[in-house]
Amino acid sequence: MQQELRFYKEQRKKILAFRYVSFLTEWDSQTDAAAGSIAADSVYNATLSEMSYRLTTDPEFERCVETLYKTRETLDDVLRHEIEVMHKSIADAKKTPMGEYVAFNELTARAYPVYVEAKRTCNFELFRPYLEKIVDYCRKQTVWLATETRKGYDVLLDQYEPHYTQAKYDAFFDVVREKLVPFVKSKTSEPQPVPSWAKQKFDVAKQREFCEYIRDVLCFDKNFGIMKESEHPFTSGMGTDDVRITTHYYENDLVSSIFSVIHETGHATYERQCDPALNDTLCGGGASLGMHESQSRFYENIIGRNRAFWQAHFSKLQKVFAPQLNDVDLDEFVNYVCRVERSFVRTEADELTYPLHIMLRYEIEQKLIDGSLQVKDLPSFWNDKFTEYFGITPPNDSLGVLQDVHWAYGNFGYFPTYALGSAIAAQLFYAMNKQFDVESSLADGTTARVNEWLREHIHKYGASKYPDEILCLATGEDFNPDYYVNYLVEKYSK
Amino acid sequence: MQQELRFYKEQRKKILAFRYVSFLTEWDSQTDAAAGSIAADSVYNATLSEMSYRLTTDPEFERCVETLYKTRETLDDVLRHEIEVMHKSIADAKKTPMGEYVAFNELTARAYPVYVEAKRTCNFELFRPYLEKIVDYCRKQTVWLATETRKGYDVLLDQYEPHYTQAKYDAFFDVVREKLVPFVKSKTSEPQPVPSWAKQKFDVAKQREFCEYIRDVLCFDKNFGIMKESEHPFTSGMGTDDVRITTHYYENDLVSSIFSVIHETGHATYERQCDPALNDTLCGGGASLGMHESQSRFYENIIGRNRAFWQAHFSKLQKVFAPQLNDVDLDEFVNYVCRVERSFVRTEADELTYPLHIMLRYEIEQKLIDGSLQVKDLPSFWNDKFTEYFGITPPNDSLGVLQDVHWAYGNFGYFPTYALGSAIAAQLFYAMNKQFDVESSLADGTTARVNEWLREHIHKYGASKYPDEILCLATGEDFNPDYYVNYLVEKYSK
Repeated sequence: MQQELRFYKEQRKKILAFRYVSFLTEWDSQTDAAAGSIAADSVYNATLSEMSYRLTTDPEFERCVETLYKTRETLDDVLRHEIEVMHKSIADAKKTPMGEYVAFNELTARAYPVYVEAKRTCNFELFRPYLEKIVDYCRKQTVWLATETRKGYDVLLDQYEPHYTQAKYDAFFDVVREKLVPFVKSKTSEPQPVPSWAKQKFDVAKQREFCEYIRDVLCFDKNFGIMKESEHPFTSGMGTDDVRITTHYYENDLVSSIFSVIHETGHATYERQCDPALNDTLCGGGASLGMHESQSRFYENIIGRNRAFWQAHFSKLQKVFAPQLNDVDLDEFVNYVCRVERSFVRTEADELTYPLHIMLRYEIEQKLIDGSLQVKDLPSFWNDKFTEYFGITPPNDSLGVLQDVHWAYGNFGYFPTYALGSAIAAQLFYAMNKQFDVESSLADGTTARVNEWLREHIHKYGASKYPDEILCLATGEDFNPDYYVNYLVEKYSK
Repeated sequence: MQQELRFYKEQRKKILAFRYVSFLTEWDSQTDAAAGSIAADSVYNATLSEMSYRLTTDPEFERCVETLYKTRETLDDVLRHEIEVMHKSIADAKKTPMGEYVAFNELTARAYPVYVEAKRTCNFELFRPYLEKIVDYCRKQTVWLATETRKGYDVLLDQYEPHYTQAKYDAFFDVVREKLVPFVKSKTSEPQPVPSWAKQKFDVAKQREFCEYIRDVLCFDKNFGIMKESEHPFTSGMGTDDVRITTHYYENDLVSSIFSVIHETGHATYERQCDPALNDTLCGGGASLGMHESQSRFYENIIGRNRAFWQAHFSKLQKVFAPQLNDVDLDEFVNYVCRVERSFVRTEADELTYPLHIMLRYEIEQKLIDGSLQVKDLPSFWNDKFTEYFGITPPNDSLGVLQDVHWAYGNFGYFPTYALGSAIAAQLFYAMNKQFDVESSLADGTTARVNEWLREHIHKYGASKYPDEILCLATGEDFNPDYYVNYLVEKYSK
């Protein structure tokens, strides 16, 4: 077994090196590379992907993982978890017919530009035949990858958030549907207009200055990461010591870039605060999509949309933009960043209405996968459900069923992790508050104490445990959506 | 042989992919990555380097190249050249004792920080023991890699500029020593003071605006490359379609960034204008260091330090900086960018005195390698020779023998390519002028005609021929340093 272990660790070094390459090429293509260069470089990236793919499909590597899997009880906790995950991923890959897999990748590559065109022209029919084939493939996946305990839509959900099943999500969204839908209706019955001071232009250099300040407030160490600009804000990390975020500045929006920075620094702090010993393993970084999103949402909503936080930092914002915000008071500003409204587009939704957007997608995915809903009926089903939950009807499919790119990529099972992240954040907030008064701690000016709690209870584990295990260790109980709904109702009842 | 060809091409794809990785990691570390991240990422880069190294040292690959080499007359021209170069590089690697090679890499890694400290504290003695070992290794290299026709310093020279031997360089520097040294002395006997308008501060945003303009003038297509900032300007390219440059803006220097952009765009245009068919081969990019430098120097000096060029663009410069340069006239500006002076530091030297700095290093390298000069005597030898050529004596070793990093890296044989580049540029200028009046063509506002000539006579070949072959095809004769000396004497006699 020593030999297998040595071989495994050698391969792992290469796998990590290729992850670094992906991290860098992604970063480059989204922040630097010219359009023509991205197209040209795709040749090299294809070769690198192939080399990387061969590392884990190499029969010798498979045999080695099989051997280690059989003797996994003798391995240390981190390596045992890593081998279990690798073993499952190899098994899933082997169950997928290669021809189908290749054809599906070609299909989504062709589908993407058609989706973009369909969205641009509000023409669902253009995209329909592609989406039908995509759904068809995902249904087949649920058969290929089924196990004793994992069937149907659960197979897809598990790819994005291990151990979170329909049973769990159903329980979650039942609470949302029952308690939140009526609450949202009552809170959004009257529109909350944007105050006139927020409709001004805000100098981008000043926005940049304030965002640098905010990053310091959030205790992010500039020696191990940078902040840059890109079309869509994102976080990208490699190990604990190279963690990068981007934001986007809009001259006519004071807070968009600020909340992007807060959100992305939540992701970045998770990456930064993993146990550095995990850097040499495949268990670095976040435990899952949902757990990662819980950190960014914790930052963005629980810290960022919080009066206590702005009590410490609003005067700095006024100072940077002086005299532009001199007549705005703290409460007006907090009301502005916490305002809620009915809206058609998920990515622009506020904290309160957001989970309703996800619930809609979850229900649709369930029905598409179990066959009770056909792709051709999708637009009308979307609009009916949307009207039921929000009380408004999308005027066209671009503001309705065509708004998100995920399905064009074949990512069925992904959406629920977004809402799960917000809900986990609320559960963590309650657990954290048992140990110290979180809002008071923010009055100190930085998030140091919050970060320390998150490091100790969530971050340090990286991906060395399953997300449900980590949540249970951190909060002393399983996932419980009541915290989330209670948090929202309490916060937005004020 | 079909099988060998197929295998070779498969490996070549991987070699190119790893070149892309190097290109990207280098770009990232010099423009984006935080200091702490660079250190952390070195682990992944080490693994990638090792994987890349193994591609060409793989015994199967060696056998394959050997077979193709034996039958090279049946290959097309480009592939034959590529196989010849690869065959030599494999042979050289095999002649180098592995233990010595590894020890040398460790030595230079240790030597670098010591060199930096020695330069900082003007303490040659600190660096001396390292440099002695480095010179010792380079001398051994000349024995290991010697062939019938290549011995001594020629072995080192050939690594940086194939086919350029001591015999050729001696002939070159003899002309420089004989004709240029007295000319430089006469031209620099009286100091040329910096005009007062050039001592102002120049807004960096305006410098950036003008540099963007200049890049358009030089016809660089922004769809296939970007311009960014870094500590030291450089060009980096991967294939013809991803070519990037950097510059550095100094508030107290109007022209530094402009001439960096012109210089780097010379390099970049070379990369851009290779035959795109070479992108899939190892014969893309420039033919050699000297040939590459000839393009950047052509741009920087022959185009950039030229009245005809500024006749077309000085008014734009005035406009961008208005009203700051309103009282400066074209001739004053051109005199400023073409002024010459005795100075200690090569990288800050003007066009006229530059080759003397190189000649000094060339003579020293020759003597260190043939053993007629010892490292311990280097500082005094440097200062004596410097005084002989320039008429001034370095006040300390940081402004003398310690100024360049090249020897700390073990790069003996590299320096001469810098002067060679300038000389080749002059030879090309003469050849080009036979076909059209280069200076008049600049009055059109762009370098389109110059670029077209360079594409057709130099760039398109990439590295698919040796640099001396390309020069001969382009100009109809071998390298001839008289063009260079005549060009300088004529230009600076005005």
